[in-house]
Amino acid sequence: MPSQPEPSPPESRQPDPQRRSERSRRAILDATLDLCAEHGYGPVTVEAIAARAGVSKKTIYRWWPSKGAVVLEALHEAADPVSGFPDTGDLRADLLTQMEALLRGLLGSPRFGRALIGLIADTHHNVELAHGLQTVLFQPRIDDGRARLAKAREAGQISPDADLDLAMELLYGPVYYRLLLHQGDLHGGTELESLVDHALRALAP
Amino acid sequence: MPSQPEPSPPESRQPDPQRRSERSRRAILDATLDLCAEHGYGPVTVEAIAARAGVSKKTIYRWWPSKGAVVLEALHEAADPVSGFPDTGDLRADLLTQMEALLRGLLGSPRFGRALIGLIADTHHNVELAHGLQTVLFQPRIDDGRARLAKAREAGQISPDADLDLAMELLYGPVYYRLLLHQGDLHGGTELESLVDHALRALAP
Repeated sequence: MPSQPEPSPPESRQPDPQRRSERSRRAILDATLDLCAEHGYGPVTVEAIAARAGVSKKTIYRWWPSKGAVVLEALHEAADPVSGFPDTGDLRADLLTQMEALLRGLLGSPRFGRALIGLIADTHHNVELAHGLQTVLFQPRIDDGRARLAKAREAGQISPDADLDLAMELLYGPVYYRLLLHQGDLHGGTELESLVDHALRALAP
Repeated sequence: MPSQPEPSPPESRQPDPQRRSERSRRAILDATLDLCAEHGYGPVTVEAIAARAGVSKKTIYRWWPSKGAVVLEALHEAADPVSGFPDTGDLRADLLTQMEALLRGLLGSPRFGRALIGLIADTHHNVELAHGLQTVLFQPRIDDGRARLAKAREAGQISPDADLDLAMELLYGPVYYRLLLHQGDLHGGTELESLVDHALRALAP
């Protein structure tokens, strides 16, 4: 953006398009998750998001191709501070920390959970959105989990020939299975501990 | 279709309404899975099902409240001959038999797989359909799996205090995780054997 003006000092009356855009972008992402929490993903429209965020529909379509794409970006930003993998050296504790945060802070929160479930449903009718879900939301976090498990493997805490993809599926498969197939949400606590302990037993050296 | 003539058996001129209904019902269920295989679940309409099955829309709506309800019944019938749990006394072999059949005969088949994925997506916008998916399609089969695992537990093949719900989630969670989150289908063979072996290790006495 070579011709974009620099943030101007208070003396100036020049508007700051960069800053205004960021404010609109945040308002749009916030409005999107709020509306999904209130109504579920299905009934939310780009019109409703625009009205709630105080922007025009045109502004939204200038930045995103569809409602699903807005939801994807909103979820990606919301997940970032919560979904990281700690590394205290204690694999079991670190998995419990990450998965409790995922369950309580994200999947169990109406703002995040309802939007994510609706987005996942939508990806099964929309190849581009499926690609976005996979590459933007899931793959970077799966890679983080694999990296944490790889360190544990090097430290001899899991089997030296542990299959890290299978390890991630044993840990997270049951979480999404329950969420997506209406089998009752996993709430963390002793139920989560039991899942992690079983997965670690399956992967033990 | 009150005025449609039935092919009558040579001796009798009496129509057999029961038989005609069953023939229409089968035609509707077949047309539904065929259309889902060709177009995916999303674009299939009750109109298109009626046209393909040679019945009126009214006939379909007399028996089912929605497209999703037709798909649910079609999947339930298609799953029945394939999804049972054998009991040869060898738990590992029986799990592999059932899961290979599930993967190859159902989830991996376009006729069944595309309809199921679309239906699951639809259940996240439709509470009644979610209830139907759970009670008609999943719960009876989960109960069968639990019963097979309970026998294995009695026989001392898995831990006497094994949690059978968790056991089912360790086995089937990864399958649906990959299917529903676009993580690449599980194709059976050595990959499936590895999953079953890890789950059994987690559940070992």
